[in-house]
Amino acid sequence: MSQYERPNIAQMHGYTSGEQPEDGRSIKLNTNENPYPPSPRVAAALASFATEQLRIYPQPDARRLRQAIAELHHVSVDSVVITHAGDEALRLAITTFVPPEGVVASTEPTYSLYPVLAQIQGAGMFTLALSADWSLPGDFAARVNGVGAQLTCVVNPHAPSGHFTAIEQLRELASELDGVLLVDEAYADFVDIQGPANAIELVRERDNVLILRTFSKGYSLAGMRLGYLLGDPSLIQPILEKTRDSYNVDALSQAIGLASIQDQDYARETWAAVRKDREVLAAGLRALGFDVATSQTNFLLAQAPKHVVAESLYQDLKASGILVRYFATPRLRDFLRITVGTPEQNTQLLSEIKRLLHN
Amino acid sequence: MSQYERPNIAQMHGYTSGEQPEDGRSIKLNTNENPYPPSPRVAAALASFATEQLRIYPQPDARRLRQAIAELHHVSVDSVVITHAGDEALRLAITTFVPPEGVVASTEPTYSLYPVLAQIQGAGMFTLALSADWSLPGDFAARVNGVGAQLTCVVNPHAPSGHFTAIEQLRELASELDGVLLVDEAYADFVDIQGPANAIELVRERDNVLILRTFSKGYSLAGMRLGYLLGDPSLIQPILEKTRDSYNVDALSQAIGLASIQDQDYARETWAAVRKDREVLAAGLRALGFDVATSQTNFLLAQAPKHVVAESLYQDLKASGILVRYFATPRLRDFLRITVGTPEQNTQLLSEIKRLLHN
Repeated sequence: MSQYERPNIAQMHGYTSGEQPEDGRSIKLNTNENPYPPSPRVAAALASFATEQLRIYPQPDARRLRQAIAELHHVSVDSVVITHAGDEALRLAITTFVPPEGVVASTEPTYSLYPVLAQIQGAGMFTLALSADWSLPGDFAARVNGVGAQLTCVVNPHAPSGHFTAIEQLRELASELDGVLLVDEAYADFVDIQGPANAIELVRERDNVLILRTFSKGYSLAGMRLGYLLGDPSLIQPILEKTRDSYNVDALSQAIGLASIQDQDYARETWAAVRKDREVLAAGLRALGFDVATSQTNFLLAQAPKHVVAESLYQDLKASGILVRYFATPRLRDFLRITVGTPEQNTQLLSEIKRLLHN
Repeated sequence: MSQYERPNIAQMHGYTSGEQPEDGRSIKLNTNENPYPPSPRVAAALASFATEQLRIYPQPDARRLRQAIAELHHVSVDSVVITHAGDEALRLAITTFVPPEGVVASTEPTYSLYPVLAQIQGAGMFTLALSADWSLPGDFAARVNGVGAQLTCVVNPHAPSGHFTAIEQLRELASELDGVLLVDEAYADFVDIQGPANAIELVRERDNVLILRTFSKGYSLAGMRLGYLLGDPSLIQPILEKTRDSYNVDALSQAIGLASIQDQDYARETWAAVRKDREVLAAGLRALGFDVATSQTNFLLAQAPKHVVAESLYQDLKASGILVRYFATPRLRDFLRITVGTPEQNTQLLSEIKRLLHN
């Protein structure tokens, strides 16, 4: 350890990302990637990209991509800032709105990056346990205000449970909170309900709501690191003009992001396929004795049958070349989080689980 | 302005980047881009990149690229962290080593991003004026220690003067400083001297030296946003494992970075051409009455002839479609910073200045 490290950095542990094997053989159902490739327009954009253009700086504010996103969501262009995937969006929200002595709030469980980013900033992390059905507890806003949180992050649909909170409840939460509400909609593209599938309306209604989106899942671009924040221009302006790194989105990412977002038809096809396969996979898991919560995402949180040790099953599947996610926390230790794969992958997973359970 | 912004963010001004026109007609000698395109291997890497690979997360720590860089510089792989260009490298050095109540030190003038990053962190910025010949003042280390700086950033070769500080002086500085010395070697590829052209030796000797490098200039990849830090593993580890965004380098950037760094022959050709043209351009400017400091970079700091107002000349050149950089600060207001272009661009610049001066 270096004597030069800040004390809060020296004390903390970094974020643990999911396993990313490079053997090309594993069935990878552990980090919620889209099982389908990116739009064919991505390959076309790459093929037509003039590499000598890389010599010069990119468009500093990624204006064309921002414009396309603004049109897609019916918000003004100054309500959009492009980020280096969702991770940068979260970091920038903390940098911009949470002082070192401040507090970031979220639920328990939640995305495990939030407390890491809070610690880097030197801020505190306050979490409140979700109800048994993974919904927000009734006193959430009051408790969060009580600890003086400047930023509250709610993943919706929720990870790792897949639970969806309707916009009415988020609207009420935003109106009650003293600070900024960030709705992390990393998985919103997979929502399949009557009524609004996201909370973007709130961006047009209120000045304390940020919506996070990513190209990683819905647009099959986890490898590119592209995301964005939507918010009232008063929230977006300091991020766009002050706290983000200047030129935070490279020229190729801008071109690929634009090609992807302009092919909504293709993206919608992959979302529809994932939604359909999610229900098939859930039914298959239930038939094997798992308790599977209703999911509005591209993954399932499956509670292992009573006599099965979830961690052992995770290990056994891994040994068979199938990766799923296991979280060694008190509330999640009986669960596996399983990404919805292709129909073939899902079938292989179910067969392998069946084989392991009957051995 | 949002009531939710942190006070230090609300008060500050963001970084002002150089003009990035997209008309495709301007002669762009204002942001120190390499006038030559990236290696042909970059186009080849793009052409052979399997876009379906973008579906999955990239190698989290960019290990292959780190390995190639470690071999190039004869350091261990745990002495290297890849960053999203130099800007992220600087931000991470501050995040990791400078507490909000801390101090970042540098010279005056220096890279104008440093004070912006210090302000975002809530840290103070201490600068000491360079000597008349742009060398470090003799009492630099003592003064920096006097204000308790945790991080001292020295651009070498220096921007915007082009002045080069030899490794012996940096070694002494590193040994005197109480904190970390970051040598910002964004322009080191263009150095043309007897003896070590960079300070990488210090990384192997000491535990308080970081070297910043970028692909933007030397590898003609400003559009890609790729850079790296070299340092003792004890300095690199907290950045690599804690403070950088997980997956901070996307899959395409890793592939392109690797293709570039493996084509040293091509890169060296562009550096040699720029060095040669730099001397031709300097002679041309001197012949027109400019006072041009010796430069070890890919730009020249040219003091306008006595009767010429530098800012007006900058404006007149811009009106003629030639962009150079003007800094409206007391010490630099009589200067233009001019990027070395292709021989044709340099000739056009000299003709246009001649025409303007004789009108």
